[in-house]
Amino acid sequence: MSEAPSVIGFYSPTEDEEIWKTRIERDLPTFQFELLEQVEEKRLVEYALVWSPPNGLLKTFENLKAIFVLGAGVDALLRDPDLPKVPIVRLEDAGMAQQMAHYVIYGVLRFQRRFEDYENFQMIKQWEPLVNIEPIEQFPVGVMGLGAIGSVVAEQVSKLGFPVLGWSASPKEIDGICTFYGDDGLASFLARARVVVDLLPLTTATEKLLNRDFLSRMSADAFLINIGRGGHLIEDDLLEALEKKVIAGAMLDVFEREPLSAESLLWSHPKVIVTPHVSGITMPQVALDQIISNIKLLESDGIPMALVDRKKGY
Amino acid sequence: MSEAPSVIGFYSPTEDEEIWKTRIERDLPTFQFELLEQVEEKRLVEYALVWSPPNGLLKTFENLKAIFVLGAGVDALLRDPDLPKVPIVRLEDAGMAQQMAHYVIYGVLRFQRRFEDYENFQMIKQWEPLVNIEPIEQFPVGVMGLGAIGSVVAEQVSKLGFPVLGWSASPKEIDGICTFYGDDGLASFLARARVVVDLLPLTTATEKLLNRDFLSRMSADAFLINIGRGGHLIEDDLLEALEKKVIAGAMLDVFEREPLSAESLLWSHPKVIVTPHVSGITMPQVALDQIISNIKLLESDGIPMALVDRKKGY
Repeated sequence: MSEAPSVIGFYSPTEDEEIWKTRIERDLPTFQFELLEQVEEKRLVEYALVWSPPNGLLKTFENLKAIFVLGAGVDALLRDPDLPKVPIVRLEDAGMAQQMAHYVIYGVLRFQRRFEDYENFQMIKQWEPLVNIEPIEQFPVGVMGLGAIGSVVAEQVSKLGFPVLGWSASPKEIDGICTFYGDDGLASFLARARVVVDLLPLTTATEKLLNRDFLSRMSADAFLINIGRGGHLIEDDLLEALEKKVIAGAMLDVFEREPLSAESLLWSHPKVIVTPHVSGITMPQVALDQIISNIKLLESDGIPMALVDRKKGY
Repeated sequence: MSEAPSVIGFYSPTEDEEIWKTRIERDLPTFQFELLEQVEEKRLVEYALVWSPPNGLLKTFENLKAIFVLGAGVDALLRDPDLPKVPIVRLEDAGMAQQMAHYVIYGVLRFQRRFEDYENFQMIKQWEPLVNIEPIEQFPVGVMGLGAIGSVVAEQVSKLGFPVLGWSASPKEIDGICTFYGDDGLASFLARARVVVDLLPLTTATEKLLNRDFLSRMSADAFLINIGRGGHLIEDDLLEALEKKVIAGAMLDVFEREPLSAESLLWSHPKVIVTPHVSGITMPQVALDQIISNIKLLESDGIPMALVDRKKGY
C-alpha cells in the first residue's frame, strides 16, 4: 500500500489533458496523473487541478492537500457547499494579464478612433474622414480591480499614452496611474473615466455592482468593457442605459449565463460588442510552470503563491 | 515700403486657418498671416505653410525663404515642376507617430485575436470561442521605414510584447527590434513577418514597391497594413493576391487615388479594411510648435529641424 504513488487528479471540461499529463509526469515524477472522475483509489489523490468541477466531486478525496484552479477566478468553486477545507491556489497570470490588456487596448482604440464608424462607412463605400477624433489626453481609461491582472492592464494602456485611472476596494498605488478606492472614490473615478474596464473578482460585494445606479454615474460618452465576471453586470440595466443614452457603448466578454442565450438582446444591439469569454485564455505551459513550482513548495512545507483567501473570495 | 510687415502665407484645402492665424500672430508678432491665394503684395511673403498646393502657386513668391509642409510626406510637393529652390521643412511628428502606432496596434490585434471572426459570429448570434488563437510570440510585426514615425510604431508595438522586425533602405539599429535593410534583407524580412506595415516615404525607389512580386514573398498567413503612401501599392496586384490566397488580408489607409472611388473593389472585399486616410492626422498645435520654433531658427540663421533632402525625396 505504501508502494502506490500519490496522485495528481485533473478535471476540466475544456482543456486537453494530454498536455497536462505529459508535463506533470515529467516534472513531478513521484506523482501519477489521473482524471479525477476515473480515479479508483480516491485516497491516493493529494492534489486536484480543476476548472468548473461539479459540486461535491472534490469532497470524495479524503487526503487532498490542495486544490489548484486552472484560471484566475474562483467564485464558482467557492459556491460548492462540500468544498474540502484545504488550501486553494489560483493561477496568478499564465499569460492572461497580457491577453486581457490587449483585449482592452483593442476596445479602447476601437472606441477612441471610431473604427466602428469607418466599418459602417466602408459598407456603404463612403469616404468620410472624421476630423474631430478626440485626442487620447481626453480619453482616460479607468481600470476597476488592481490585482495581478488589473495592474498589468493599467500599465500597458498607460504605455500607449492614454491617461489611466484605477479603482480598487482598498487603497493601492501604481506608478503613473491615478488611483481611487472604496465607495467614496468610486463617484470621482466613474465621472472621469471615458472607458470603464471591469476586472474585479466576483464576491458578495461586487455581485451586481454594474447596475442602473452605477451606470448612471458614468459619463454619457463613456464605454464599459466587462472582462471581470458576468455576475457583476445586470444586463437588463445595461440595455436600458444604452437605450436612454446614459452611456455610449459596451464591449462584453462575460455574461450572467454562458454561453449567452440566442434570445439575449445584447447580440443585436448596435452599441454592444459581444465576445465569447476569450479575453484571457489559460496558456497551459505557463499555468503548468506555476502549478508545478507551487506543488514543489507545498511538498517542502513552503507556502504557495496566489493562495486564495476564502473570506475575501479571491 | 520698409514699413510693411513680412508675410507668412498659408494654403490648405482641409485645415481651419483661424487656428493657424491665431498662434502665428501671437508667437511671431513681426509677421502678418495671410492666405497665399489672397496675398496682394506677393514679394512680402517670406514663409509658406502649405498642404497640397496647386502646381505653380509657390513660384509666384519671389522672396520666399522656406516652405513648410503641414504633414510628413512631401512627395506631392516635389512633383511641382516650378517649385522654388528654397529649403523645404516637413513636420517631424506632430502627434502623428503615436496615432499611427495606435492604428497599427488596432490592426495587429484585430488580426491576431480574430476580432473580425467574433463580429461575424455576433451577427449570427453564435457563441464560438476560438481556442487556437496564436500566441503573440508567433506573430512578428514587420515595420518598413524606420524614420521618425516608423521607429515610434516599432517601439510601441514592441512594448505590447509582439516580436518586431524592421526594414529600411540603409542599415539601422533599434533596441529590441530585429532589423533588415536593402534588397538583400527584404526577402528574409518578408518571409518572417506576420504583419507587414508600410511606412516608407514615396520616392522613385519605393513607388509601386508593393506589387505582385513583393506580395508573393510575404507568407500566406500574413497581413498588409498600408499607412505609407497609396503610390506604393498596386491595388490590382493586392486584389489578385487576396483572391489567390497569396496573403491573408489587408488594412489600407492610403490609396492610388483619394478619395477612393466608389467603383473600387477594395471597398467590398471581405479581407480588406478601408479607412479614409486617417491613420495620422496633423494636430495643429503640435505642428505649430514645430513650425514656429523652426521659423525662429531660420530668422537667427539657424538650421531648421526636419529639413527635406530633395534628392532622397524625404
